[in-house]
Amino acid sequence: MQQENKKVTYSFKNDYSEGAHPNILQALVASNLEQQDGYGEDQYCHAAIETIKEKLQDPNVDIHFVSGGTQANLIVISSILRPYESVIAADTGHISTHETGAIEATGHKVNTIDVKDGKLSPKKIKNLLDLHTDEHMVKPRMVYISNTTEVGTIYKKQELKDLHQFCRENDLLLFLDGARLGSALCSSENDLTLAEIVKLVDVFYIGGTKNGALIGEAIVISNEALKTNFRFNMKQKGALLAKGRLLGIQFLELFKEDLFFQLGNHANQMALKLSENIIELGYQLLTPPQSNQIFPILPNKTIEKLKENYAFYVWSKIDEETSVIRLVTSWATKETAVEAFIEDLKKI
Amino acid sequence: MQQENKKVTYSFKNDYSEGAHPNILQALVASNLEQQDGYGEDQYCHAAIETIKEKLQDPNVDIHFVSGGTQANLIVISSILRPYESVIAADTGHISTHETGAIEATGHKVNTIDVKDGKLSPKKIKNLLDLHTDEHMVKPRMVYISNTTEVGTIYKKQELKDLHQFCRENDLLLFLDGARLGSALCSSENDLTLAEIVKLVDVFYIGGTKNGALIGEAIVISNEALKTNFRFNMKQKGALLAKGRLLGIQFLELFKEDLFFQLGNHANQMALKLSENIIELGYQLLTPPQSNQIFPILPNKTIEKLKENYAFYVWSKIDEETSVIRLVTSWATKETAVEAFIEDLKKI
Amino acid sequence: MQQENKKVTYSFKNDYSEGAHPNILQALVASNLEQQDGYGEDQYCHAAIETIKEKLQDPNVDIHFVSGGTQANLIVISSILRPYESVIAADTGHISTHETGAIEATGHKVNTIDVKDGKLSPKKIKNLLDLHTDEHMVKPRMVYISNTTEVGTIYKKQELKDLHQFCRENDLLLFLDGARLGSALCSSENDLTLAEIVKLVDVFYIGGTKNGALIGEAIVISNEALKTNFRFNMKQKGALLAKGRLLGIQFLELFKEDLFFQLGNHANQMALKLSENIIELGYQLLTPPQSNQIFPILPNKTIEKLKENYAFYVWSKIDEETSVIRLVTSWATKETAVEAFIEDLKKI
Amino acid sequence: MQQENKKVTYSFKNDYSEGAHPNILQALVASNLEQQDGYGEDQYCHAAIETIKEKLQDPNVDIHFVSGGTQANLIVISSILRPYESVIAADTGHISTHETGAIEATGHKVNTIDVKDGKLSPKKIKNLLDLHTDEHMVKPRMVYISNTTEVGTIYKKQELKDLHQFCRENDLLLFLDGARLGSALCSSENDLTLAEIVKLVDVFYIGGTKNGALIGEAIVISNEALKTNFRFNMKQKGALLAKGRLLGIQFLELFKEDLFFQLGNHANQMALKLSENIIELGYQLLTPPQSNQIFPILPNKTIEKLKENYAFYVWSKIDEETSVIRLVTSWATKETAVEAFIEDLKKI
Repeated sequence: MQQENKKVTYSFKNDYSEGAHPNILQALVASNLEQQDGYGEDQYCHAAIETIKEKLQDPNVDIHFVSGGTQANLIVISSILRPYESVIAADTGHISTHETGAIEATGHKVNTIDVKDGKLSPKKIKNLLDLHTDEHMVKPRMVYISNTTEVGTIYKKQELKDLHQFCRENDLLLFLDGARLGSALCSSENDLTLAEIVKLVDVFYIGGTKNGALIGEAIVISNEALKTNFRFNMKQKGALLAKGRLLGIQFLELFKEDLFFQLGNHANQMALKLSENIIELGYQLLTPPQSNQIFPILPNKTIEKLKENYAFYVWSKIDEETSVIRLVTSWATKETAVEAFIEDLKKI
Repeated sequence: MQQENKKVTYSFKNDYSEGAHPNILQALVASNLEQQDGYGEDQYCHAAIETIKEKLQDPNVDIHFVSGGTQANLIVISSILRPYESVIAADTGHISTHETGAIEATGHKVNTIDVKDGKLSPKKIKNLLDLHTDEHMVKPRMVYISNTTEVGTIYKKQELKDLHQFCRENDLLLFLDGARLGSALCSSENDLTLAEIVKLVDVFYIGGTKNGALIGEAIVISNEALKTNFRFNMKQKGALLAKGRLLGIQFLELFKEDLFFQLGNHANQMALKLSENIIELGYQLLTPPQSNQIFPILPNKTIEKLKENYAFYVWSKIDEETSVIRLVTSWATKETAVEAFIEDLKKI
Repeated sequence: MQQENKKVTYSFKNDYSEGAHPNILQALVASNLEQQDGYGEDQYCHAAIETIKEKLQDPNVDIHFVSGGTQANLIVISSILRPYESVIAADTGHISTHETGAIEATGHKVNTIDVKDGKLSPKKIKNLLDLHTDEHMVKPRMVYISNTTEVGTIYKKQELKDLHQFCRENDLLLFLDGARLGSALCSSENDLTLAEIVKLVDVFYIGGTKNGALIGEAIVISNEALKTNFRFNMKQKGALLAKGRLLGIQFLELFKEDLFFQLGNHANQMALKLSENIIELGYQLLTPPQSNQIFPILPNKTIEKLKENYAFYVWSKIDEETSVIRLVTSWATKETAVEAFIEDLKKI
Repeated sequence: MQQENKKVTYSFKNDYSEGAHPNILQALVASNLEQQDGYGEDQYCHAAIETIKEKLQDPNVDIHFVSGGTQANLIVISSILRPYESVIAADTGHISTHETGAIEATGHKVNTIDVKDGKLSPKKIKNLLDLHTDEHMVKPRMVYISNTTEVGTIYKKQELKDLHQFCRENDLLLFLDGARLGSALCSSENDLTLAEIVKLVDVFYIGGTKNGALIGEAIVISNEALKTNFRFNMKQKGALLAKGRLLGIQFLELFKEDLFFQLGNHANQMALKLSENIIELGYQLLTPPQSNQIFPILPNKTIEKLKENYAFYVWSKIDEETSVIRLVTSWATKETAVEAFIEDLKKI
């Protein structure tokens, strides 16, 4: 089936335009007629959990698979906070504006902090804490960060250590949204490992949907106090899939070898190639290219021309004649598509 | 991969032990590298919706795909009720006890009615309504029924018509949980069509997960007043999948021909074969076999013996020496497994 | 101001028909122009808390004042339970049907148990617990009881001890709704003291509204783990009154001497006098008279006749010609009203 | 009773430090032993409602009494919005930061807008609306404003008309928090009447607590669509007082003559006298004095000195040596206290 009204050669709109990596589909086919227990108690989920624990170098974490990022966020946050507690997020954070009030729908305020680069720091959080002094205000209790952030930047090891330290000192829990963690960990500027992240946050998730799976995020809980009865929360929010094997099989494929990292790396390489060539053609980027999302600044006329062959989002306006666009690459982006884009840009 | 500690030949525990019908996997593979829009706006979702509308003989319904039954129930109910309104359900109803308070978590009371056969009737509902007289009590506003019910029975056309009529007269909305609608519509006792259901209820869903899909339920809204902004509710509850194509592709396969009904029919045939043979062997069933769930009454010793080779749930106790078991068949149940079970039962 | 369409001489409809005991109004007048801190941090609240602690013989409890019973129930329950946890209550319990889903609106299921006498017992609770086995169901975590119950009965010391013991053994918290605790503790059959209740439950409240105050319930938390940040929950639910002194002044009056018990005793005496005379006239009561609510069984014709001069609720139907009525007395019920009622009954 | 550790002569901390206007206490005493129906169905509530309707010159509004501002806000907002809808407020708005997440606890996001003067305008709201484009974000549906605002400013008639018009054009509902409406309507700069407000907003409330009552806010609903079953929402949130007469009696006293306006006027006069004298002494105010809250800018040393005799809040820091304080006057503020404050300030 071809999208009827689609004339573009390639879409750089996001990293979930294609299906799953072929290995995953193959594994689904191979296991299809086996009978397995339901609701995540099948052998594949068990095997995937053991495999991921090895990659995390921590046998004590709890791991749960859910369908998507908003679901992961709302379950993690609502299962941890008391009714009067809030979560702190960057204003660019996914939970702040792009989840239709999913967190508030579970009863909790999201305290937002204005940022430019998508990242929170102890200083910014401290300012917010200082404003929350008594029972007439919510009690901020959790810090939510995304890696990569929603604007394509990444957290360096020292930044995460500082946040970790600050949270410990201020009785805050640290939650990392890793919907694009594959791209973050494969960034050329990254100096963090999965094993280090486990130790620096209380809970995080490893995104499958945006890194080669059909659906699926793996929630990893390292803080002992947050583990109790987590599956009750999942069931209550509609997140326990009857055929939970669908999630287990995918994560087993992603982690039994290093497929997860290969896919993240490919996406980043494609973004880097785009960046380098765009810069070489004399254009600037809004932010340094650190992951699979880049933000070139182009003349509006050039943008209009590019739209004839490529799909992408116009991110923001610089001035009357110039705008920022967002290009996203994925595990499935073909090098030929990148080259064609650059060739077309040259001709404009 | 084989379940290591599994010595049983076959599991009759439920209808979601296997993966998906092979046609579905094939369609996933065939479309895998196409680029499609996200969040249910892909061509497959659109095509599946058009196809189902044709089967429903109603171009005006709204159709949305979600991952599972609990998710469907909580989104439908919470999107419709005002804060002080409640939903009426049989005590056997899935929302009453088997969803970890998912409905209450959205703020709504479930008013339960004691039933034996899993079914609600105008008379039973009337009794409950009569007890709710003023603002010191919730206002019952919706009736939730399941077809097939959670105890394997089905609603006949006249029963549904009576409920429809009663709901209209009492300002109640009627919601049908069709997690096992495939089996219900293929029951030898069924006299309802999909097109008739559309006209008799305000909203219902067609279950994919328990009838051949990996995941997925198709919510059908026929009441105009319930359609507005439904996707906002889906997003807020974490139900909009980034790769929504996963749901569209499956439902297109189930409905582009009559695969959905073939699979429901097969499951029922296997259950019927089990029933007939069990009865022939001199045993009784708790309820007449109407769908893919049957409830044989067997001596405890026989049950223990059967457990050596088969997995199933012991449903309830009759007396010290006799119990009811539940056997569930599915689209994937092999006739040889049924025959083997009967042969083994004969030998005990 | 006289109720225009009111021809009845006296209302036995409830125990909140009159205003407050005159001592309370006098204290409000006397303190009126003093400046006090807001939101329960005034001197009267502090003094009332200290005074009640003395009566409870426990300096370690936390005490908070709120406006009414539904507010107390919803704050206590929602502040304690995790999202997937439920509260167990008798089907006659106030939270079960007479609070418009207030508990469910905070996200929690109320598991109800059928009772005749309004009281829960370990055996009944055990049956319910046995049905809750895994994460597909809510996790019952709290037991809610009322003393007096909603049908006028009271808990004896041994019954409360048994519940206490059972809750400890089953990781359940015990919450006692004391909206009518004054009447319960002044029952001729009562063998419990306030000091004993503190030790036998995790949290309870002392009802002011139905025992001489204008508004107000005093929540007493004895379980250390439930004390943290309770005022945040109060504020979030709109229960922190700016002029919190209104609550403190009232409870100080009720407890600085034994006014609270005098009022409870008077209400009970009036009910007892009604009961004894009604029995003497040859009528029966539905339940033995233990508190300020009694349930005489009368011919419908007699009831109709009584309605000409008295207001009360018809509670339930016995047969075509006989019904149960509910008569409620209060701290303000005049002995002359009771005598007039009896005289009128004699004449019918 | 005197606050033991209180050495200050007078507190300008807020407008709820004293009890109620003596007329109110007198009315409570006079009616105390009358029997009245419960839950707001007494004669006083009915009479107060009729009286307020006359002042509003609108017999068609619905009026309900609740205990306090946070309770009023959470009931109004949660009773109106669908789950995915949000409310827009100034960042200074009471619901934004000073209600412990009360609105979020009912499931709704508060979209905040940065303001200096506490007031929203169509332009600011438009900017926010433009950012909310699809189902991945909440749907802003209500505008919340306060008059007076939380920083002491008031809305002029034209400003409210503009908001009204903008809301109509953008399918937004307009809700006015009138916790300090008495002071607003008695401002020397005010050009609005109660009758005009009814026509310009969909729902608002008239604050009693901060204008002479012990507790109580009168919610006025003029939009027909918002009236249905409102008492169910009140009961569910614990806002229906058993002795609802307490609220009715107070509002009847406030409005049967013009006591409400006399009290608002007195508070404003005291604030004006403070302002004029402070300015005369050479100090500046942060904002022009429009109501019963004023914000003088004073040297820190002066502030420390004043604190010896007066209680008030230090609002914000101007520089190392200068701060803003907040002085609040009330219906009960004595002119002698104002004069003493000015005399003391002169001496510093």
